[in-house]
Amino acid sequence: MAAHALTERELRAWRTSFRMLELLRTRLEQQLQASSGLSNADYTVLALLSEAPGGRLRVYELGRAAGWEKSRLHHQLTRMGTRGLAARERCGSRGMYAVITEKGRTALEEAAPGHAREVRRLFVDRLTPEELDRFADLAGTVLDHLRADDQAP
Amino acid sequence: MAAHALTERELRAWRTSFRMLELLRTRLEQQLQASSGLSNADYTVLALLSEAPGGRLRVYELGRAAGWEKSRLHHQLTRMGTRGLAARERCGSRGMYAVITEKGRTALEEAAPGHAREVRRLFVDRLTPEELDRFADLAGTVLDHLRADDQAP
Repeated sequence: MAAHALTERELRAWRTSFRMLELLRTRLEQQLQASSGLSNADYTVLALLSEAPGGRLRVYELGRAAGWEKSRLHHQLTRMGTRGLAARERCGSRGMYAVITEKGRTALEEAAPGHAREVRRLFVDRLTPEELDRFADLAGTVLDHLRADDQAP
Repeated sequence: MAAHALTERELRAWRTSFRMLELLRTRLEQQLQASSGLSNADYTVLALLSEAPGGRLRVYELGRAAGWEKSRLHHQLTRMGTRGLAARERCGSRGMYAVITEKGRTALEEAAPGHAREVRRLFVDRLTPEELDRFADLAGTVLDHLRADDQAP
């Protein structure tokens, strides 16, 4: 077996984790789409922008926070621009910013309670508070490495 | 605060978990695309079909195993059909099957070592074996509920 190959146990752990997250994404997006016409990606952008000072973030920071690569973020912001949910603004030499619009804030406010209810029903309430913290701690360990790796040349 | 609203702690746990997944998906897909031209979704379908008897699964079972909704699976199989990686076959009254092609098997075999290496580097090796098991146990608890919920009317 090659050094990088996964053991049965590792493969099982990986697949369970990945499939849980895939199914969770699917279910959350179904609820969002049906109730508000937003995708998971729309919701993530709106939530991140709404919490930033002035409702704006550097495009680079937004991509980093969302965990997306440049081209995906570009297409996402173009689609949201067409729908009037967010805009891109060049800001002098400091580069490009993404900004939430009034329409974007309204859409987020309308979608938020239903989305939170579904996150709670499908994820948060399925674990005890201690299990939830443990899960997030482990996810955080992986996330920190991923972000450090992202910075590497 | 509405009953369904998430506490700060719950929201933090949820976001860490979701962002970890998003970034991990992005990174895995970058490696897959660059090395083999496959997407995460292509890889998932090829892996699931290759492990099924005769390289075939009912389309319904495939969607359930991958955690996707019907329309996403339909589009995915159409794209893979066009590229010759998988085919759909009607099988009497037992409904529609998805089948891996020879070209699909070859693509999977070529992509598998690099994909496994990246899963190990970015996820498996970031946790101790005990942490990995713990993460998968918690993910499994959530996954079981999601699948049960999927069956609900």
